[in-house]
Amino acid sequence: MNEIIGTTIDSEMDSLILDLQRLIRQPSVSAKKQGITECASLVADIMDRAGIHSQILHLDHDICDGRHDDDSSANPIVYGEAKSKANPNGKTILFYNHYDVQPEDPIELWDKDPFSGKVEGNYIFGRGASDDKGELITRIKAVEYFLKMTGDVPCNVKFIVEGEEEIGSKNISQYLTQYKDMFACDGIIWEFGYVDEKDIPIISLGMKGLLYVELVAKGPSRDAHSSLAVLIENPAWHLIRALNSMRDSAGRILVKDWYNEVRDFSAQDISLIEQEPFNEESFKKEYSIEKFVDNISGAETRKALAGNPTCNIAGILSGYIGEGAKTVLPAEAIAKLDFRLVPDMVPEKQLERIKKHLKENGFKENEIAVKFIHGEAAARVSATDPFVNIVQEAAKEIFGSVITSVSSAGTGPMHSFIEILKSPCVSVGSTYVYAKIHSPNEFARVDLLNNATKCICNIMEKFANS
Amino acid sequence: MNEIIGTTIDSEMDSLILDLQRLIRQPSVSAKKQGITECASLVADIMDRAGIHSQILHLDHDICDGRHDDDSSANPIVYGEAKSKANPNGKTILFYNHYDVQPEDPIELWDKDPFSGKVEGNYIFGRGASDDKGELITRIKAVEYFLKMTGDVPCNVKFIVEGEEEIGSKNISQYLTQYKDMFACDGIIWEFGYVDEKDIPIISLGMKGLLYVELVAKGPSRDAHSSLAVLIENPAWHLIRALNSMRDSAGRILVKDWYNEVRDFSAQDISLIEQEPFNEESFKKEYSIEKFVDNISGAETRKALAGNPTCNIAGILSGYIGEGAKTVLPAEAIAKLDFRLVPDMVPEKQLERIKKHLKENGFKENEIAVKFIHGEAAARVSATDPFVNIVQEAAKEIFGSVITSVSSAGTGPMHSFIEILKSPCVSVGSTYVYAKIHSPNEFARVDLLNNATKCICNIMEKFANS
Repeated sequence: MNEIIGTTIDSEMDSLILDLQRLIRQPSVSAKKQGITECASLVADIMDRAGIHSQILHLDHDICDGRHDDDSSANPIVYGEAKSKANPNGKTILFYNHYDVQPEDPIELWDKDPFSGKVEGNYIFGRGASDDKGELITRIKAVEYFLKMTGDVPCNVKFIVEGEEEIGSKNISQYLTQYKDMFACDGIIWEFGYVDEKDIPIISLGMKGLLYVELVAKGPSRDAHSSLAVLIENPAWHLIRALNSMRDSAGRILVKDWYNEVRDFSAQDISLIEQEPFNEESFKKEYSIEKFVDNISGAETRKALAGNPTCNIAGILSGYIGEGAKTVLPAEAIAKLDFRLVPDMVPEKQLERIKKHLKENGFKENEIAVKFIHGEAAARVSATDPFVNIVQEAAKEIFGSVITSVSSAGTGPMHSFIEILKSPCVSVGSTYVYAKIHSPNEFARVDLLNNATKCICNIMEKFANS
Repeated sequence: MNEIIGTTIDSEMDSLILDLQRLIRQPSVSAKKQGITECASLVADIMDRAGIHSQILHLDHDICDGRHDDDSSANPIVYGEAKSKANPNGKTILFYNHYDVQPEDPIELWDKDPFSGKVEGNYIFGRGASDDKGELITRIKAVEYFLKMTGDVPCNVKFIVEGEEEIGSKNISQYLTQYKDMFACDGIIWEFGYVDEKDIPIISLGMKGLLYVELVAKGPSRDAHSSLAVLIENPAWHLIRALNSMRDSAGRILVKDWYNEVRDFSAQDISLIEQEPFNEESFKKEYSIEKFVDNISGAETRKALAGNPTCNIAGILSGYIGEGAKTVLPAEAIAKLDFRLVPDMVPEKQLERIKKHLKENGFKENEIAVKFIHGEAAARVSATDPFVNIVQEAAKEIFGSVITSVSSAGTGPMHSFIEILKSPCVSVGSTYVYAKIHSPNEFARVDLLNNATKCICNIMEKFANS
């Protein structure tokens, strides 16, 4: 890669860290609608200072309805653009990132203020340090250093930085549709990429889908004294029975037809999965667990990560959960469930299957209501796509070697990007696999931020020449 | 009954209400260790002003260990005594009450401040208005008016007012043992008594026992991203399966040998139960429910209230329960369970059975731990006891008629009182069955407080002459 750029990245790491700290110190918890517009403005400001032309985008119908800054509106997207002077009609790369973060709860388990951005040696701590403010800053800086050192970018560059990724990117496909022409591109770099415990980047070609629902079980019209449990059905018991009917102890989902649309791995997928390193023992140690779900091991663990649907209890609540012994029969019980989906499952179809399952298992709608929170389909890009090869080669030069993963275990709106922008999409970045994203004490590693910035520069150069 | 006393009770209702408001306005939530010593002092003050000699009692071992006012000590008991001058060697009646209250949660469902004691017409609202500050005040006032109007009490009177009833009276048997001689008596009036929707008092001769446990399911060492649910077992699923294995949809507890020691109703018990009125429709309406557990009706509902053991989920918590969609795999899941016990079940034995059940169903102790919170045995006094007859007759004169109930559906440490003080124990009082005790908007009815005070006076007179 360009040597001057590489040297600049090394010498300017302090500036990268300072900008990342600015981003972390601006809480932007989309689940709580906290600091969203403030963080969008901050991102735009950092882009502008980097020489990237920024715009804050809203959805038309929000603007027309006069609600583009009120609570009911979609969170704004920060759009950024840097045109190549030397190559204005050449390739365009699009970076997709998000400026929103997960809630910091449980806050009592953080060793530091989650919004401090404290640096200790090679680590920067804070909510969003890796997911996704760390990733975002490497991409902005890659462009900034090109502009600063060469006065140009090797290929055209576009940024989409959204503010609803952590609550399911519920408006991203509307944004993509409305601004389709503005966002037109030839290849998309996804918002994150993992780096494994041996510092090898994992280039991921897919993402799982997600269906997020709440089951709300209703009992008596108000909390009752628990002595009345001889007569009044406790809605928590209803919920327990409903949940128990949905998944077996091996993790298999018992909802009828659940797996109907699951696409089998291709022979090439299987070959990639078998090459993927995965240190089962260090993973188990990291989470202090003795065995995996259904006791799987070996290639089965990687197949599960890339291709198993799940039904997870993300939250459950009923009755008295404070100190001491309150004897209450609660009026309501709620479970939050997230189902990971794989190609070619359709979220809406799966939702209907859940409703049907409950009905067929004797749970009436006035006893247990299914509240749809979010749904998105899974995506997988073919490993033979030329853009995939560019990213692989670019990353190999910087990190020494790469791992190609058929699909991340996580979810993102990759399906919408590929469908609407008609471009391949690849995930590569700086997120250490044990960076505690979504957990207390999330951090980013400075060495990986450095390498990822170099890798992004390398991709831009190779893409321009492809 | 004594006419002067009756007239005094009517004319002094304002003073009764004012003292009840003083008590409600002093929060005394034992589950949160809130306002306990303050409320004990207030009760002692109200007793002293009434002419009842009060003492604040502590447990010896708390005093010896120098911790009788710190957090680890037992909450104090307020003891009160009024000796009969005319009849010092005659019968002694003991009133058992409690000055602690249930937590006010969920506070957002209260129409008024739960600690305001607001009066509206015939209603006094507030946490503890009925349970048990309302009951307590009728008994103090009964003694006060005797002393005020006649200069004496017809029989000797003792009060035990404890501060841990709502957290399971965990030290009451120690208090009863330590102060056994001081508390010696010939009959005990229990801390509450229900009055039904037709204003007929329910004289109850027993209480159920209680076993309160927490099931704590442990998963990974920290919350994880829910995409890892393909590999990491979610402790909430473990908990769901464990709970589901413990109770069927008809309310039957599936723990082996659970019902072994259950004492059958006697023929006399059955006859009393069959005479008990119970308006199923107004009960269902009150709680907006369509049917009872296991679809029971008729005498079965009264049998269930008097004699069915239960397994109730008083609380359950895991993961993210805030707004929005957090995709987390929680590290822990907790359920609070309360089991109502009947004669002659032994709490300690039942606890061991739960542990054995989980073990036999494949749940290891490091996966689901059973935490003992509280246990107490059930009690039933024989309907042929002469003290029962005195209470029945006294109540009949004031309220017009009475219902005799074999056992309350609720729990209290009646077993300890009967065992240690060797006296019969009867429950009679002023608590309207729909007074929303343990729920938001708890209230007491002024007319019932008036009648209950008269009834207590009547019992004292009849007991003195028995």
